[in-house]
Amino acid sequence: MASIWIKLKNARVARLATVDPTGRPHIVPVCFVYNRKAFYTAVDQKPKRVPPQKLARLRNIQYSLQVALLIDHYDEDWGRLWYVLVRGKAKLLSKSAAKERSAVIRALRAKYPQYRAGMLMDDAPIIRITVERSSSWHA
Amino acid sequence: MASIWIKLKNARVARLATVDPTGRPHIVPVCFVYNRKAFYTAVDQKPKRVPPQKLARLRNIQYSLQVALLIDHYDEDWGRLWYVLVRGKAKLLSKSAAKERSAVIRALRAKYPQYRAGMLMDDAPIIRITVERSSSWHA
Repeated sequence: MASIWIKLKNARVARLATVDPTGRPHIVPVCFVYNRKAFYTAVDQKPKRVPPQKLARLRNIQYSLQVALLIDHYDEDWGRLWYVLVRGKAKLLSKSAAKERSAVIRALRAKYPQYRAGMLMDDAPIIRITVERSSSWHA
Repeated sequence: MASIWIKLKNARVARLATVDPTGRPHIVPVCFVYNRKAFYTAVDQKPKRVPPQKLARLRNIQYSLQVALLIDHYDEDWGRLWYVLVRGKAKLLSKSAAKERSAVIRALRAKYPQYRAGMLMDDAPIIRITVERSSSWHA
């Protein structure tokens, strides 16, 4: 388990799946942090196809909280493949959760140097994913 | 578009999202081929947590054909990030689709040398993903 924890902590990207109101799945790559209690991802300042409030991930979690988050490693040596699939509930952190929000912003900036150059606003929307089930696989 | 086509063709892994009968999303990393008409992925001989017939991806597409497939590139230079999100219908190819099945098996073995060493059976379950919508993003 220690090794899974380190892999999850060090992974640079995860894929977040949500479900839209018509029951169709959506996936997006996300930067994230994990604190052993929950996963967090922010809507950052990378260019977006639509304004933040119209992002599918945010719209979808208003409709269905159920999300899946996949952290995996691809390698041409298939003996080194692994993934962790997390299934849980997503929640957009409200402004009143100021302490939790600022801890997440700090953790994201610590993990991703890219965020320190203005790519992550203090008031960025933050999604918390509370783990309900997880499964892991390795080759 | 040419560059997207080459990126899709060359990408080594995609993430497939399906939805279970309770409306919860599921994601799994998959090897795939793309022939400009459809995407294909096979249930191969990599070790699995459950028997092939119990795999979530196969169970879920019996319930809902609607799937999402994400092909993306992560890079520490965030100016080089990109993704293509495909949304469409999944279908498990039947044994009667012998010509299509054998073309896919050949294409998968051509793309992945790993498959040539017995990792992909001639009668492997094959999922075809017919594209209904796609969107692409790059930084």
